[in-house]
Amino acid sequence: MRVCAIAGGVGSARLCAGLARVVDRRDLTVIVNTGDDERIRGLHVSPDIDTVLYHLAELTDWARGWGLAEESFVAHERYQRLVERLPEIQDDLQDWFALGDRDLATHLLRGRLLDLGRPLGEVTQALARSFGIESNVLPMSNDSVRTVVTTTKGERLDFQTYFVRRHHSDALSNVEYSGATEASPAHGVIEAIQAADVITIPPSNPVLSVAPILAVPGVRTALTRSAATRVAVSPIVGGRALKGPADRVMASLGHEVSPVGVAGMYKGLIDFFVLDSVDESRRDDIEALEMRPVVLDTIMSGPEEAARLAKDILDAIA
Amino acid sequence: MRVCAIAGGVGSARLCAGLARVVDRRDLTVIVNTGDDERIRGLHVSPDIDTVLYHLAELTDWARGWGLAEESFVAHERYQRLVERLPEIQDDLQDWFALGDRDLATHLLRGRLLDLGRPLGEVTQALARSFGIESNVLPMSNDSVRTVVTTTKGERLDFQTYFVRRHHSDALSNVEYSGATEASPAHGVIEAIQAADVITIPPSNPVLSVAPILAVPGVRTALTRSAATRVAVSPIVGGRALKGPADRVMASLGHEVSPVGVAGMYKGLIDFFVLDSVDESRRDDIEALEMRPVVLDTIMSGPEEAARLAKDILDAIA
Repeated sequence: MRVCAIAGGVGSARLCAGLARVVDRRDLTVIVNTGDDERIRGLHVSPDIDTVLYHLAELTDWARGWGLAEESFVAHERYQRLVERLPEIQDDLQDWFALGDRDLATHLLRGRLLDLGRPLGEVTQALARSFGIESNVLPMSNDSVRTVVTTTKGERLDFQTYFVRRHHSDALSNVEYSGATEASPAHGVIEAIQAADVITIPPSNPVLSVAPILAVPGVRTALTRSAATRVAVSPIVGGRALKGPADRVMASLGHEVSPVGVAGMYKGLIDFFVLDSVDESRRDDIEALEMRPVVLDTIMSGPEEAARLAKDILDAIA
Repeated sequence: MRVCAIAGGVGSARLCAGLARVVDRRDLTVIVNTGDDERIRGLHVSPDIDTVLYHLAELTDWARGWGLAEESFVAHERYQRLVERLPEIQDDLQDWFALGDRDLATHLLRGRLLDLGRPLGEVTQALARSFGIESNVLPMSNDSVRTVVTTTKGERLDFQTYFVRRHHSDALSNVEYSGATEASPAHGVIEAIQAADVITIPPSNPVLSVAPILAVPGVRTALTRSAATRVAVSPIVGGRALKGPADRVMASLGHEVSPVGVAGMYKGLIDFFVLDSVDESRRDDIEALEMRPVVLDTIMSGPEEAARLAKDILDAIA
């Protein structure tokens, strides 16, 4: 059974880690959002790709959600000390973005491979191999697509400034995927969607993590036309985001903060929609969107629970 | 008294550290070789600039000669482990170049500043400020000049491959400074030479460290025309290089491996030439090159000895 996941953020990385435990991992392809990518201190950082890699390699700090377990921050602390002596330009120096020492090795290897002229897709596949990952991990595009938000105060912010520097505390009036219309899917993306038996949109922020992938020309059409069984999982449980700002972003942009609000954004793309048992009362509203509701316990508090949820989903849609 | 040093490599960084202890450090300008600069893992690394910065900041590992004291290598060891899983491309991944965790902060700050579009000269001055250095540290040029060596077996090697990867063990038939003829001196370089009361070429490899600086158009002429007292220090003591491959490089290229061989390369540029007391018998040969010989104990085994040598040199040429 070939499984394709459309992934961005911690929730989706968790479900991918679960899927890799219950299907043949060589049959799993993960297409990852790169709208959050940013140049940090001279290096190309792909936060969502790294979160997926670290989860698939079982090296992540599960509770924290980002980065590697048993991490140290010698380089970062030293960087912050250097920046302290440059108050006149400190604002430009990204000292609010922590890169751990082990994590840095990933960015350095990506930096070297990009320096060699390889496209991000090849680079990402080499990184996956370097982590011993047998699944196929692909960026949504080799081209630059950048999520840019506009706050209700009218400020335009790059994603990491909004998300990390300001702790996603601004209310948003708009979200754009800059560069998306000119981008092409990375080699293998459309092919993986076409070849899949099951396509899943794990619990991810629909606006910040999933929509950038759908904005890459060709992806939405491939999903629409796919013969696969397509299943999404709600990132909203009991009216709140499990992790991150999905609830506030949805409210800001006028979406209902509920599984039904999420499902509405996937209308026409999805056959099954998984909602948490606490939201069971919304089954009928999901059906009204022409999706089949699946009620499950969706909280993934560890790798075992993620594997259990992955199995439950596959069983439910079989 | 304004002092200008033409620097590259460990010996010159040591003498600069000594000078900074015996003159007003705000009156010291160090013009540094960037022919050894290389992109390492996506980052611009300037080994000679960093060696000068770390010595001036008194943060260096004096005995090792490169890098910072009390260094850790978490990122580097992790990088090597990732590379082990990519045997098919390992040869391109520079896992032989060690970057310490604290050292990485320097390269990351340089990377960020270069990403902001600043020229290498401004970047280097900001780095110096971030280290609390009050002296003026300048790259020889903002433009790319790269030292490329040809071995006696006919291989052309970039500098770091020759120096670090192959431990400078190849005999050389030629050394070029690729890009030098199109390069311009960085802002402040010519001005520092013109304004100096004393110009020093510390003990450095004349072919690999000093010659690239002299190859930047305008530098040699400015030195020739300078009204400053100009003094060079021999990196060859008792027929051997104090550090690095200067002896073998000079022999390979047909130069006499002695203070006289070094002085011959600086003919017309230098007023005084410092040779070690073990080479005192060569005084007359230095005089024959129209330089005034100065015999001193030149071994800098620590910061105190470097300061003593700096003071002895300034006293001798006063």
